[in-house]
Amino acid sequence: MTAQHEDGLPARITLRYEPSGKSVRVPTGVSVFDAALWNGVAVDSTCGGHGTCRKCKVRIVDSELPISRADERAFSEGQLAEGWRLACLATAQHDLTVDVPELTTRPKAATVGVGRQVILRPAVQKRYLKLDEPTLADQRADLQRVRDAMDDLEVEVDMDILRTLGRDLRAADWKVTAVVVGADLIALEAGDTTDRMFGIAIDLGTTTAVATLMDLTTGAPLAVSSMLNRQQPYGADVISRISATMLDFDALDRLRDLAQSTLADLAVDVLVEAGVTPDEVYEVALAGNATMVQLLLGIDPEPLGVAPFILASAHYEGLRASDFGVPIHPRARATAFPALGAYVGGDIVAGALAAGMDRDKRLRLFIDIGTNCEIILGDGEKVLCTAAPAGPAFEAASISSGMRAAPGAIEVVSIDDEGLHLQVIGDEAPVGLCGSGLVDVVSELARTGLIDPSGRFLSDDRLAEVNPVLAPRFIERDGERVFVLATEEESGLDSPVVLSQRDVRELQFAKAAISTGWRLLAEEMGIQESDIQQVLLAGSFGTYLSARSAITIGLVPKIPVARIVSAGNVAGEGAKMALLSEPERHGAVALIDEIQYVELSDRADFNDRFVDELAFPV
Amino acid sequence: MTAQHEDGLPARITLRYEPSGKSVRVPTGVSVFDAALWNGVAVDSTCGGHGTCRKCKVRIVDSELPISRADERAFSEGQLAEGWRLACLATAQHDLTVDVPELTTRPKAATVGVGRQVILRPAVQKRYLKLDEPTLADQRADLQRVRDAMDDLEVEVDMDILRTLGRDLRAADWKVTAVVVGADLIALEAGDTTDRMFGIAIDLGTTTAVATLMDLTTGAPLAVSSMLNRQQPYGADVISRISATMLDFDALDRLRDLAQSTLADLAVDVLVEAGVTPDEVYEVALAGNATMVQLLLGIDPEPLGVAPFILASAHYEGLRASDFGVPIHPRARATAFPALGAYVGGDIVAGALAAGMDRDKRLRLFIDIGTNCEIILGDGEKVLCTAAPAGPAFEAASISSGMRAAPGAIEVVSIDDEGLHLQVIGDEAPVGLCGSGLVDVVSELARTGLIDPSGRFLSDDRLAEVNPVLAPRFIERDGERVFVLATEEESGLDSPVVLSQRDVRELQFAKAAISTGWRLLAEEMGIQESDIQQVLLAGSFGTYLSARSAITIGLVPKIPVARIVSAGNVAGEGAKMALLSEPERHGAVALIDEIQYVELSDRADFNDRFVDELAFPV
Repeated sequence: MTAQHEDGLPARITLRYEPSGKSVRVPTGVSVFDAALWNGVAVDSTCGGHGTCRKCKVRIVDSELPISRADERAFSEGQLAEGWRLACLATAQHDLTVDVPELTTRPKAATVGVGRQVILRPAVQKRYLKLDEPTLADQRADLQRVRDAMDDLEVEVDMDILRTLGRDLRAADWKVTAVVVGADLIALEAGDTTDRMFGIAIDLGTTTAVATLMDLTTGAPLAVSSMLNRQQPYGADVISRISATMLDFDALDRLRDLAQSTLADLAVDVLVEAGVTPDEVYEVALAGNATMVQLLLGIDPEPLGVAPFILASAHYEGLRASDFGVPIHPRARATAFPALGAYVGGDIVAGALAAGMDRDKRLRLFIDIGTNCEIILGDGEKVLCTAAPAGPAFEAASISSGMRAAPGAIEVVSIDDEGLHLQVIGDEAPVGLCGSGLVDVVSELARTGLIDPSGRFLSDDRLAEVNPVLAPRFIERDGERVFVLATEEESGLDSPVVLSQRDVRELQFAKAAISTGWRLLAEEMGIQESDIQQVLLAGSFGTYLSARSAITIGLVPKIPVARIVSAGNVAGEGAKMALLSEPERHGAVALIDEIQYVELSDRADFNDRFVDELAFPV
Repeated sequence: MTAQHEDGLPARITLRYEPSGKSVRVPTGVSVFDAALWNGVAVDSTCGGHGTCRKCKVRIVDSELPISRADERAFSEGQLAEGWRLACLATAQHDLTVDVPELTTRPKAATVGVGRQVILRPAVQKRYLKLDEPTLADQRADLQRVRDAMDDLEVEVDMDILRTLGRDLRAADWKVTAVVVGADLIALEAGDTTDRMFGIAIDLGTTTAVATLMDLTTGAPLAVSSMLNRQQPYGADVISRISATMLDFDALDRLRDLAQSTLADLAVDVLVEAGVTPDEVYEVALAGNATMVQLLLGIDPEPLGVAPFILASAHYEGLRASDFGVPIHPRARATAFPALGAYVGGDIVAGALAAGMDRDKRLRLFIDIGTNCEIILGDGEKVLCTAAPAGPAFEAASISSGMRAAPGAIEVVSIDDEGLHLQVIGDEAPVGLCGSGLVDVVSELARTGLIDPSGRFLSDDRLAEVNPVLAPRFIERDGERVFVLATEEESGLDSPVVLSQRDVRELQFAKAAISTGWRLLAEEMGIQESDIQQVLLAGSFGTYLSARSAITIGLVPKIPVARIVSAGNVAGEGAKMALLSEPERHGAVALIDEIQYVELSDRADFNDRFVDELAFPV
């Protein structure tokens, strides 16, 4: 009963990377290179995954993959026979084990985001200084001596460094490594430590937080960890959390502490996994929506939650890792992506940066799917953006059998004449339905005509006509019609896993909000749906959606499936870019001026358009 | 038995200022204006005490003072008869009570230091902002709205302000006063508070600390307080305190805490006296020697104490009042005068600034007398500086009957044919001899020939010839010859107050170190002793020295007494200047480049010259 795409491929596959032994689960068709990138496995590259630098050499251990033209040029016949391929051109269609060679040279650039090649120019830099010992003829102050040894930089110095500077320089016999972040000298380490320099990129979502430990000397991701945002008990969405602070004076402190403890635990996870000590990590870059950032910093969020929806500040400067509660170097700095507005936060700016929305000349549509769904349409010249309130359809709590994408979740659904086929995470007995499974099942029911274009389940009579095998799975339960995905016997629970009529309605609302959003942006841009050259699906839901199902229900424009691309956790990728490159960080600030925000709720025709979009395409 | 100058005037007088009721004890001949200035009594002035602005009008209540030409022009005959005088031209020769009118206009300048007229341009500034309330059409972030309202400033903002910014702006109905220090926005206060803006100027000496509360809107001193530096138990001089930190790892923390608690108590004193709340004080300016500054900041001082004598840093930036432990506004900033070297610290730079050594065109010699004595010779073009190790002669501990200038201390001594005349602080029975008394008694003994030019007490035979009245006061005690200043019966102790032969030697060493210093600077400058147009005596000892006695023993050049001027606590005055004017603060930094340091110990002829200088002038 394993679900497959119509082309016979499994919807989700597992890649195992050696020698790290890391296993990752990704949508079918993702390149071996991208899958590594998203999951903290470092693969060499200087071209950004475009098949031109021929550096991303990996060996496919236990399977055979097609040989591309670039592979023929990059490898000998013997190597090809052994399984060597360029990772960026190797599309994973089945479970694979991939041998990744160690990085041999120190790269000058790294690939992050959606095929973005980023020159390594981190805000963190190290300088090994061999200082002259002071004499009566050279009585320069200790700090002056350090400054003079790196006189191309004009650094500010923390008092904490000065407290022990004299002792430290003398104990190190005047040979020290200066650690500079931006314009701040944050540490002087004894001896030459220039080869150890790390940062943590964080995507702090309302639901989930993800941290990636980055080696700033190579640009390579070393470890990734994710967990639920501990603020969950204060509500699933930002408005609930803002409301909590308005009702209870102490809630702000508690929400700050919960966010900080979430990030602290993630930091410990990635440090332990990679064997890096906290004192070697000098910066944190964070992407989060405006509410998450304000709560994390302990900034009163009330003005975000009530009209006219005002940020405390678009941009925070002079941040330290300790402001985020991240236990790394005590003087480590931090940066947070700037926000465009109360509902287009730093997460979206980070995502737009990672997706190259400011420079890719193709006409592209970027959709970050979540409770609040952000949509960007741009061609590198003009960039339009809007936020669509998609509602809770993608949140587990609002769907009858909803659950997160965890073991036991139905993530892929297909329907044919033989009946129903499910793919369940962990190949266990199903216990619920995650976001991608929801879209899949509704899409399949619509495609096979078991629900009509208005979203209504067919009557029992019509069901029996259209699909007699599945008709018995439509039953009445607690006064509502439901479609049984797994009966009490089939499921891993003592109750069935179902999709209710109301669940379909929830998804219709979400889909209508999103498609109204991109249709109105397309009008504003003066283009047709079919002109769109690429659709990037981002966010924890977007990445795992079946492109085919998304087209079927009208969530995305009707363009060839191959042009609908999983963009991964673009907010997190943006955070990595900010860590690896100060120029890219400045690019994010510039983006804020370039992106033009289109307010949907202002438009007189919004409600009419929304109602039109509720139906599924025929 | 009260000592008088030869011209019949008392050496020290008391001035009482009304309506504050503040009593101050100052050297005879100081102007009523300077005495007020030094002691935190605000008197109007825009010319810097040069008799030209005619703003420093005061009424001498209980005495008659000569009428100057400027007085005739400034006042009617009736007013002159009532006692009105210009304070800057009124030289106090007797105890006086002075009525000071309230400041009527907000001055644009203040007089500080040695007649320095400082235009008020404090680093602290307040802006009253009436902001537009945000709307859906104007969704600027709260901070942006504040920034836009003062767009001539580019301010950085503390995270603490952002935490409550939204609530604060709304609670204040969008009418707030921004408090900016330098380039930092440190507070937003509800409503218009522009008329309340204070700072504290601190002179942190090895022995004594002095704090002055300044009104930054008027430049007026509001209150002064001084106390012993609580670090005293760790030794009287900087070397002892540095040694303490080298012997005991925890001593640095304790010394820091003691210095900070000293300053904290002084701050509380001046705030209480002036009725100012801590939150209205936004900056501290501090002058201190390099060791005091490093200890205060908790910076390891060891390299200051051992060759080649290295500062941690010449200049500390980004300081906060909390780094000094001064409990004022929680985000108040702080500034410390930069140092020229390990032994020419910020106190001397502050003093040189206050004395106008960088701009006064007269050839002037500045001597700050203490254990370490700093000497500056300059004519506004060329400024030379040196440090002379004067030793402990001026410290109470090294002199037989030594004590601080406190009640019971003999502070003035004169000798004539009738015998010995003493002036004792508080008109009490004498219990000891303070620094100025020591110089006086040795000077008088030398002048009257009771000690010979080599510093030796005359033999008993010769004594009886030279001054039969005083001869019996030279006695043998504990195997040493001493001169009895007060017998057991005359003194307030159950033992006599004496000057020993060894005490004379101590003073000779100090005097020789100092006079060798200025003589060598004069040679370096290519000038004669008699070319010097003014000598400024500074520091807690210098200010109260008798000019006549200082000349007699050869401590200062032999020039007319009137040209030897008490400069007051110039380090503290420099700190006031830094509070009142950012340009002057920058001037202090510039001074560091202008002052040329002359190392005495380098010179081959130093020891010979020193020995020559031990003798008293004949």
